[in-house]
Amino acid sequence: MGLIVQKFGGSSVADAESIKRVAKRIVETRKAGNEVVVAVSAMGDTTDELLDLAHQVTLLPAPRELDMLLTAGERISMALLAMAIRSMGHDARSFTGSQAGMITDASHGAARIVDVTPGRVREALDDGAIAIVAGFQGFNRATGNITTLGRGGSDTTAVALAAALHAELCEIYTDVDGIYTADPRVVPRARPIPRITSEEMLELAAGGAKVLYIRAVEYARRHGVTLHVRSSFNNRTGTIVYNPPAPGLDENGAPVEEAVIAGVATDLGEAKITVVGVRDEPGKAAELFTVVARAGANIDMIVQNVSAAATGLTDISFTLPKGDAQAVLAAITAEQQRLGYLSLQHDDQIAKLALVGAGMRTNAGVSAQLFTALSEAGINIEMISTSEIRISVVTRADSIDAAVRAVHTAFGLDGEDEAVVYAGTGR
Amino acid sequence: MGLIVQKFGGSSVADAESIKRVAKRIVETRKAGNEVVVAVSAMGDTTDELLDLAHQVTLLPAPRELDMLLTAGERISMALLAMAIRSMGHDARSFTGSQAGMITDASHGAARIVDVTPGRVREALDDGAIAIVAGFQGFNRATGNITTLGRGGSDTTAVALAAALHAELCEIYTDVDGIYTADPRVVPRARPIPRITSEEMLELAAGGAKVLYIRAVEYARRHGVTLHVRSSFNNRTGTIVYNPPAPGLDENGAPVEEAVIAGVATDLGEAKITVVGVRDEPGKAAELFTVVARAGANIDMIVQNVSAAATGLTDISFTLPKGDAQAVLAAITAEQQRLGYLSLQHDDQIAKLALVGAGMRTNAGVSAQLFTALSEAGINIEMISTSEIRISVVTRADSIDAAVRAVHTAFGLDGEDEAVVYAGTGR
Repeated sequence: MGLIVQKFGGSSVADAESIKRVAKRIVETRKAGNEVVVAVSAMGDTTDELLDLAHQVTLLPAPRELDMLLTAGERISMALLAMAIRSMGHDARSFTGSQAGMITDASHGAARIVDVTPGRVREALDDGAIAIVAGFQGFNRATGNITTLGRGGSDTTAVALAAALHAELCEIYTDVDGIYTADPRVVPRARPIPRITSEEMLELAAGGAKVLYIRAVEYARRHGVTLHVRSSFNNRTGTIVYNPPAPGLDENGAPVEEAVIAGVATDLGEAKITVVGVRDEPGKAAELFTVVARAGANIDMIVQNVSAAATGLTDISFTLPKGDAQAVLAAITAEQQRLGYLSLQHDDQIAKLALVGAGMRTNAGVSAQLFTALSEAGINIEMISTSEIRISVVTRADSIDAAVRAVHTAFGLDGEDEAVVYAGTGR
Repeated sequence: MGLIVQKFGGSSVADAESIKRVAKRIVETRKAGNEVVVAVSAMGDTTDELLDLAHQVTLLPAPRELDMLLTAGERISMALLAMAIRSMGHDARSFTGSQAGMITDASHGAARIVDVTPGRVREALDDGAIAIVAGFQGFNRATGNITTLGRGGSDTTAVALAAALHAELCEIYTDVDGIYTADPRVVPRARPIPRITSEEMLELAAGGAKVLYIRAVEYARRHGVTLHVRSSFNNRTGTIVYNPPAPGLDENGAPVEEAVIAGVATDLGEAKITVVGVRDEPGKAAELFTVVARAGANIDMIVQNVSAAATGLTDISFTLPKGDAQAVLAAITAEQQRLGYLSLQHDDQIAKLALVGAGMRTNAGVSAQLFTALSEAGINIEMISTSEIRISVVTRADSIDAAVRAVHTAFGLDGEDEAVVYAGTGR
C-alpha cells in the first residue's frame, strides 16, 4: 500500500459513462489502501475539436493562445472525473497543471518540464483526498504563461508526478493490454511482454512502438519510476517497465539471464533522403547535417556509402519523419552550391524495423540471425543502424508486414494464441 | 482616447465567424487610439453543454469542481478571440480570471469580488497589446481555488476591470440596442434610453429589466464606472448609464432638470405568498421573515394589512422568486405552531410593474398618475411598494402587457417608430 499514480488517456474518458467507469477503478485503488494521484487527458476528440475551432478562426494560431485553448480540454475531463469520484463518496480534487506545480520552460506546444512542485497535490493526499491532475499542461514561471507538453504529454505528466511524489508505481492505462512483442494487428501471434527494462522500452518506442511516448519513458528511466502499462477495459496485468539496478543484475544485484529479444517495433512514418555525389572530404557531412538541423528536422538513421575511388564522390542517405521531408529538401537545395552535390533523391515508401533486447549485449549472433530471417523471407535491406541493444533495418514499405512476421517467428517470440486486438487500438 | 473595457456576451461569440466579427470591432477601437481590455463570456451554449455533461456524471456536482468545469468555457472563447485579433496584425493576450487578478471570496457558484489586481493586464496594455480577460471567473487566495461569479458574471468582470484600471468607459455589448423605456417585445413603441443614472438603472434591473444584471450595476455605481450598453450587431449609440455627482446636479455640479420617468420594467418571475390570520403583535413579522430567510429566499415586496380590530389578526403578503416558493412554504408550514397563523396562500399568477425615474423625487403626482392610468385600463392593483425613485405594483400576470402599454403611453414614453426587436432578444 503506497502512492500510485494512474494515467488515463482520452479514449478512457471519452464520455460520461467512461468517466464513471474510470472513477470506479480509481476508487477501487483508493479502497485498497493506496494514496492515488490521477493524470487525465482531454475527453475523446476534444483536442481535435478545439484545434479545428482554432483553424476556423485563423490558419496560424498564436502558440501562446493555442496552449491556452487546448488546456481547456483537460480542465473539463478532470473536473468531471473529480465530480464522479465525489458522487461515489470519496473526496477528490482536480488541479490544473499550474496548480499541480508542473513547471516548464517557456516554449509553447512542446514545453519541457523543468521542475515539479506538487505541494497542493501532496496536501490533498494528506487530507485523504484523491488528486486529479490535468495531463499535458504546465506553467512557465518567468512568463506566467500556460504551456503544453506536446504529443503524449499526459504520460509525461503522470511520470513526472510519480517521480516528484516518490510513487511506488505509475500505471499507464491505455486501450491495449500492454506492450506487445510486435504490433498485434500485423503479427497475430504477438504476445504482451510481462516485464521490460526502460532501456529496451526506449528503443522500442524510438523504433516506432506507439503505446508509450519516448519522453515519458526517458523521464521514467532518469528518475527511476516503475511503469505499469495496462488496459483500462479489463483487469489483466499488463507490462511492467522497470529500471534494473545495473545491466545484467536483478533487483538484488545478482546476475540474471536476460531474454535475448524483448520485441520488434515498426515505423512507417519516416522518409529517406539521399544526397547523391557529395565530395568525400572531411567536414562535408557536418556541413550537410547543419543545414538539415537548421530546417528543424530530427534525423534518425544515417548511412554513407564508401566513395568511388575514381570520382572521389560519395552518397549520404538519412531517414527523418515524413512531415519534415519537404522543408529539408528545400533547405538542402538552397545550399546546393556550397554543399556541392550532384542530385537529391526523396523516397517515402520505406519502413523501419527495430529488433530490441538487452540480451543482445552478450549474444553475438543476433545480427546474422536477423539478416538470415529477412533474406529467407525474400526481403531486401536498404539501411542498417545498430545500438548496444537494438538493430534497425530499413525495407520497402510494402514488405514490412512480412518482415516483422518473419523476424517475430525467427526469434521465437510467437505466442500460442492469437492476440486480442481492440477496436481503436493504436490511439 | 483612453482606456476602454468592452464586454461581449455568449451570443456575440457563438461561432468562429462571430468571433472574427467581434475581433474586428475590438481592433477598430484599438486603431482609434484607445487601450482596450475585453471581458468575454463562453461561446453560445457552451456553459449549458458543460452543465449537461456534469449532470450526466452526477446529479449533484461538487461546487468546486463545477466551477473548474464551467471556467473551461471562457478559456476557449478568450483564446480564440486573442488568436483572431493577432491574425489581424494586433498583439493580444488572453488572461484567465486568476491571471487577471479577479480575487473573490471562497464561495463557489456566486462568488463576490473582494479585490482586483490586474497587474498582468496593465503590463499587456503597456506593451501595446489588447488584453482579453475571461468573464465570469475568479480566484480565491486562501483556498487557491477557481470560483465563478454567478449569473451575469461577465458584466461584473467588465465593470470590476474598468474600476480597477480607471477606464474611461465600460462598453457592454449585447443583442439589443441598449436599455429601453419598456420591453420592446411587449411595448412596440418603446424607445432606447440615451442616458440613465446608475440609480435608475438599478431600480429598472431590480424591477425585472434583463439587459444588465443588478450586481454589475451596483459595482459600477459604487466605483463610479460609466457604462455604455449597446448592440454588437450594429454601430448605433446605445444607453449611457452614468453616475451623476449628486442627485439633481449635472456633471459640473449645476442643477439639472431630470426626466421624470426613465422607463418601465416588468417581472413575471415572482410569486406571492400570503400568511393569513397572523396575530398582530410586535415581533410576529420578524419571526416570520426569519423563517423565510433561513429557507434561503430573497423576498421583494411586503404588504401587511391593517388588522381587524375584532379579531386582532392580520394578513402578511410578500413576493419572492417563483423558484424559492416551495422551500419557503415548507419552512413556514413546519413552524405553523410557533408562528400561530391560520392558513397559507400561494399565488404564482402575478406580475410586477416598476416605474422608475429620478425625477419622481421632485414630482408629487407620479403615483396618482400611475394609479389613474392603470384604473382607466381596467387593471386591478394587488400590492404597492415604493422607493425614492420607483413605484412598483403587482397585478394579475395576464394583464401585465396591457398595464405596461397603458403606463408607457400615460407617461409620454412612446416613441414615434416601432422598435426593432432582434431574434434572441432577452438572453
